[in-house]
Amino acid sequence: MASRRTIVVLGGALAGPAAAARARETDERARILLLERAGSVSYAVAGLACRLSGEVASAADLDSRKAAYFRDLYDVEVRTGVEVTRIDPRRRTVTAGGRAIPFDALIFAGGVGTVFPAGLAEGPGVHAFRNLADLHAVEAGLRTARRPAVVGGGPFGIEAADALARRGASAVLVERAPRLLPSWARAAAAAAERGLRAAGVEVLTGAGVAGVERRKGHVESLLLDDGRRVPCDLVIVTAGVAPRTALLAAAGARLLPSGAVRVDDRCRTSLPGVFACGTCIAPLHAVSGRPAWLPQAAIADRSAQVAGSAAAGGGERLGTVLGTVLLRAGAATVARTGVLPVEAHGALVTRVHGPSRDPFLPGAEPIHLVIRHDPRSGRLLAADAWGVAGVDKRIDVLATAMAGGLSVEDLARLDLGYSPPFATARDPVNVAGAVAAAVRAGLASSLSPAEVNARSGSLALYDLRTPAERREARIAGSRPVTLAALRADPGSLGVPRGRIPVFVSRHGKRGYLAVRIARARGFPRAAFLAGGIASWRAEGLPVEGRKP
Amino acid sequence: MASRRTIVVLGGALAGPAAAARARETDERARILLLERAGSVSYAVAGLACRLSGEVASAADLDSRKAAYFRDLYDVEVRTGVEVTRIDPRRRTVTAGGRAIPFDALIFAGGVGTVFPAGLAEGPGVHAFRNLADLHAVEAGLRTARRPAVVGGGPFGIEAADALARRGASAVLVERAPRLLPSWARAAAAAAERGLRAAGVEVLTGAGVAGVERRKGHVESLLLDDGRRVPCDLVIVTAGVAPRTALLAAAGARLLPSGAVRVDDRCRTSLPGVFACGTCIAPLHAVSGRPAWLPQAAIADRSAQVAGSAAAGGGERLGTVLGTVLLRAGAATVARTGVLPVEAHGALVTRVHGPSRDPFLPGAEPIHLVIRHDPRSGRLLAADAWGVAGVDKRIDVLATAMAGGLSVEDLARLDLGYSPPFATARDPVNVAGAVAAAVRAGLASSLSPAEVNARSGSLALYDLRTPAERREARIAGSRPVTLAALRADPGSLGVPRGRIPVFVSRHGKRGYLAVRIARARGFPRAAFLAGGIASWRAEGLPVEGRKP
Repeated sequence: MASRRTIVVLGGALAGPAAAARARETDERARILLLERAGSVSYAVAGLACRLSGEVASAADLDSRKAAYFRDLYDVEVRTGVEVTRIDPRRRTVTAGGRAIPFDALIFAGGVGTVFPAGLAEGPGVHAFRNLADLHAVEAGLRTARRPAVVGGGPFGIEAADALARRGASAVLVERAPRLLPSWARAAAAAAERGLRAAGVEVLTGAGVAGVERRKGHVESLLLDDGRRVPCDLVIVTAGVAPRTALLAAAGARLLPSGAVRVDDRCRTSLPGVFACGTCIAPLHAVSGRPAWLPQAAIADRSAQVAGSAAAGGGERLGTVLGTVLLRAGAATVARTGVLPVEAHGALVTRVHGPSRDPFLPGAEPIHLVIRHDPRSGRLLAADAWGVAGVDKRIDVLATAMAGGLSVEDLARLDLGYSPPFATARDPVNVAGAVAAAVRAGLASSLSPAEVNARSGSLALYDLRTPAERREARIAGSRPVTLAALRADPGSLGVPRGRIPVFVSRHGKRGYLAVRIARARGFPRAAFLAGGIASWRAEGLPVEGRKP
Repeated sequence: MASRRTIVVLGGALAGPAAAARARETDERARILLLERAGSVSYAVAGLACRLSGEVASAADLDSRKAAYFRDLYDVEVRTGVEVTRIDPRRRTVTAGGRAIPFDALIFAGGVGTVFPAGLAEGPGVHAFRNLADLHAVEAGLRTARRPAVVGGGPFGIEAADALARRGASAVLVERAPRLLPSWARAAAAAAERGLRAAGVEVLTGAGVAGVERRKGHVESLLLDDGRRVPCDLVIVTAGVAPRTALLAAAGARLLPSGAVRVDDRCRTSLPGVFACGTCIAPLHAVSGRPAWLPQAAIADRSAQVAGSAAAGGGERLGTVLGTVLLRAGAATVARTGVLPVEAHGALVTRVHGPSRDPFLPGAEPIHLVIRHDPRSGRLLAADAWGVAGVDKRIDVLATAMAGGLSVEDLARLDLGYSPPFATARDPVNVAGAVAAAVRAGLASSLSPAEVNARSGSLALYDLRTPAERREARIAGSRPVTLAALRADPGSLGVPRGRIPVFVSRHGKRGYLAVRIARARGFPRAAFLAGGIASWRAEGLPVEGRKP
């Protein structure tokens, strides 16, 4: 028993307990000690919004694994309400309440903390939303609040606003940037915004918060930095999070500029004997190959297993991450995976729209996909998906395809499960791959909605849709045309000299076909609007026509 | 115009029209001619069951793309009601109605035909179920039939029986083999059977059909080959299909023993200028590397695109297939991908059970997974999945993982979309990978339910579940034990000399942990029941205890 190692885990919530459990599975003899500042050991951060929405009957359901569970199942000593003030990597001790606790291996799972924008501070009626204490405070406030505000239009803010809408509250979501999810693809972000608005959330973008105004101690409004006021009586702040890594920094660990801990493939930090896991670390991104700080539960859980294994002498490896995110925004589901659009330099972008299941069945809903691939290798780099049904499946397939290094040609051929209630024989994922492969093979050129919008002076737009569809909504300056007319008399297009004909269809399919026809008839530079009018509208670009 | 090529496509339904469309997208100048025996050009075979169930309002919804669609959109000449009697590859002609039609390229999409078991023939009250004419005949019969029978317990038979149950009919499903889906994993097949029974279908296995008995011209019963009679008044035969490739065979094309056409990566047959696609071909299997005849709509559609492209001079490639199948059986969804169990020689098998979404939300349903991997490389070879919700997503992720050549370690790390309404932070797919990786790394040994059942004389079973769970259902001869007792006094197990202790838990997780504890305490050969009692019961193995 002399050689029994002591593993100390810092941090509860998701990662710390998962790391402790995996350490036990790896080394049955070790002494394992879990220290957590708060009163609860293990709780689901991602579940907070589900409790706020009323979908989870009781907050206790989020807090189901008590200290006794970890003691009985994993023989882990759990101490809650313990604040560690120092890590001494040389002596291999942590200090808590003035006492030094020795370790052979330390697993740091500090998580992230909410960053309050300048002018906002935690206080009466102004709350973070990261743990059970925050949840209790917000729920108490909602007993009287009529108009809750959420500050921050990233994933956490959207989840909170969505939850408030589900609860029936009349919420307002405030985001500093010109749009929600500012680092995401524009169309996916727009889908989230439409979803929230349709669910009754007021969405204010381009609205930086300067402060909060109170009356008799009660929140009365948010003050924006342009002087506007947003009436509200409760504020949930989700504007940003930062890794809680001050203890590691003080001990001399190497951090990234974001404050996230750089770890190797075994979750080792730069300090000997000190491992890190959870939302405070930056694993390598599968596509970019660079450290990526992605504070997400699934990555936290995975890294916890690696850190727990490694700290106990096991061999698990962290591998890479993709940054897959899946969100509800009202009736919409919005998701992404892979590098961010700004990181996908030179990527070719494909836009498709297809049904979630066989359209001959009721309940088929459109799935919208934007995929980015490397034009040289054809490899998938990123994907966005949104819709009402089946979005979670498509983003997982695309993430898995990316993990396997699949090309768009592989995607076109992917042998997915087909049964009419669940999919079409040619899934939207297959279609996205096929369209991307066709463009890559040089069969047709496409222009993105933004390109068509920006270059309209050098283009001639031809609309292949029906007169009824054109009456409903059309791009200014576009002219009607049919495939039959195009085949019979391409000269009838009357393309002005120097302009490139661009074919507009509902989803891009007929546009593609029109390009094939036009190319064979003397228009080698013809292109189609990628994703058709559906993508144009998804990007929020203007149309003429009847009001919807 | 002298060099304009003529592409003739033989066969409607799904593959022929898809091939014609892709040929047009590839060569805008070609003359494209589609010949189909039946009266409809394009219809969804997979949709027949959805119409039978009543979910599709009208059979016309399955037949939405008429000849006019292909003419207007794709400039394809469609001729229905045309029976081709001969292919002459030397002269490059097909013969129909005594006239020779010349081609430069021929795309053969003959599909499959129903094979009636000896003693059964198509006739009044006895119908195949492959096309719209069959559907109309069955629907006419169901106006008076009280007791429809489905002959054949493969995927098509299960879909038909499921559809009859959804329609409210009191159906009986008859299968010659000792179980449904005889080539599938036993537990997945059992799930399909349970699903159908719960939906009110009577399932008779080990029941070979010898004939049909009629009274006054009306079907009265099926006669089984053991002399039993199954009362019924309508018979749907789905017992088998065979490629309709007689025309190709007569022309000298190379076929497989199954009658399926061997094609290369461009869907070329052994006859010059003759391509084949659809359910009659045998592409290469991604895992086995051998030709696999898998008559499925998604593969048919994919090969049609390749044949259409290739026949028109394009460069698409077929790649490999996985044989992904997805089925409803009452409330259950049952799915598989990869090689069949008999083809997965030497594979390690992992069984896990996890929730479809976060269990703190209502509506979380168990997902059951069986994955097979190569013990040397760790690569995934096959997967079965069943459950009530989210099965389609998991099988698609597993299929995509297989297409990317992922190992079980990769699967454990897969960065899937996590949001409580759609998944858990550690998805069952991740868990399956992690358990397989742990066994592969030698951290613990597992025994399958069948192995535990067969070797019970050399094992000592210890049950880690609660007394209440044991009262409900337990394996005969198993003894209760707790992890705490195992840790405190492993001698108290009292393992009989020469026996291997095997730990039984609910889903396998605690069993795994018990093996880790036991190994550290002098039981190096300890093992756990893979998938726990849940897998034991999923395989239909006997338990003692209270009746459910």
